Amino acid sequence: MITVYYDYLCPYAWRGVELLAALEIPFNAKHYSLVQGNHPSNTSLPRSAPMWKLVDQEIGGTGNAELPAYLDVNGSLEAFFASHAAMQQGQEAHLRFTLELFRARHANKKDLNAQTALAAAELAGLDMNAFATARADEAKCRAELAIDLEEAGKLGVFGTPTIQLETGDIAYFRFDKLPENQEGKLEIWNIFKQTLLSDARIGTIKRAKP
Amino acid sequence: MITVYYDYLCPYAWRGVELLAALEIPFNAKHYSLVQGNHPSNTSLPRSAPMWKLVDQEIGGTGNAELPAYLDVNGSLEAFFASHAAMQQGQEAHLRFTLELFRARHANKKDLNAQTALAAAELAGLDMNAFATARADEAKCRAELAIDLEEAGKLGVFGTPTIQLETGDIAYFRFDKLPENQEGKLEIWNIFKQTLLSDARIGTIKRAKP
Repeated sequence: MITVYYDYLCPYAWRGVELLAALEIPFNAKHYSLVQGNHPSNTSLPRSAPMWKLVDQEIGGTGNAELPAYLDVNGSLEAFFASHAAMQQGQEAHLRFTLELFRARHANKKDLNAQTALAAAELAGLDMNAFATARADEAKCRAELAIDLEEAGKLGVFGTPTIQLETGDIAYFRFDKLPENQEGKLEIWNIFKQTLLSDARIGTIKRAKP
Repeated sequence: MITVYYDYLCPYAWRGVELLAALEIPFNAKHYSLVQGNHPSNTSLPRSAPMWKLVDQEIGGTGNAELPAYLDVNGSLEAFFASHAAMQQGQEAHLRFTLELFRARHANKKDLNAQTALAAAELAGLDMNAFATARADEAKCRAELAIDLEEAGKLGVFGTPTIQLETGDIAYFRFDKLPENQEGKLEIWNIFKQTLLSDARIGTIKRAKP
């Protein structure tokens, strides 16, 4: 099965997950933190050895104080902990939760917080008692998140969505517009796969921007 | 016609030019300077407004002194001036020169200098008197190079090869291995074009590296 690294903060990750969901391509969901990846304290450090770690932060702590607004520490923690709580209800339920939380954030412009996560769980049809119990075990959610972020660091993930194929080939995949019909969606998924699987070992296709 | 921005220092640019030559796809040749693009003085400046410019340097000047070896100022100037001199003999002759100079540098591991450029001109079957005369007019070569680098800067070129299609879509295209047969070559060229021309506005496909 493929693996997708994503961050709820990221609109490109949202589009990537919508693409795979629409094509009914199952995937292992893992998290990558843009806040940690772009944190000033981690600049020029190897991605596998960050100095500032998201999992060392507390919700409501001082982590946000020195950062630009888009690096939302509290929102990241709320979203990732809720996501790990939702995972306990299985892959399909978790995918529904993921889509609802992405849509709340990027289609409906909600902040990532406990209330938004709860509403997403409701819309996804989760067992709300089980979700609340799982979310309340923050130590477990945090430990699972630490594993995701460590794996992402070891693989050199630098943005989201990053997709790893069954072959081990792994790349960041950024597109501006989710194609409306299935053919269009399949086309860009095939482009992504062909790029990674070509014998030429294509490393990068990246637009220049003025 | 498509346009290709390249730097003789860059093995990926070499592969890109070999790809287009093998597929007999004609292109406008323009230069981009890795030395200028990666120069410490230009870090965090817009690509359209560098502080340190290659065209402000003299061959044999002090430009190389503080830089890592791969940022070869003299070699860049020698190669680019010779390239502009060769352009005066037409697009086909220039392509032959380009391929010979790339092969001298990256297949045969020669330094980029006046001697290597001269040997490439000879192998490319250039009119050597005309080449010497054109190369001697360094002010003209320099002025032409300045235009290339300014255009690259305006377009946000950040590496080579960067290829601009007739549609205006423009991207960096990096691959590790030139496919041996024509089908393989055509396949990766089609992947590149499809990536740029998709309605999804794909911005980046980039491998994560541990």
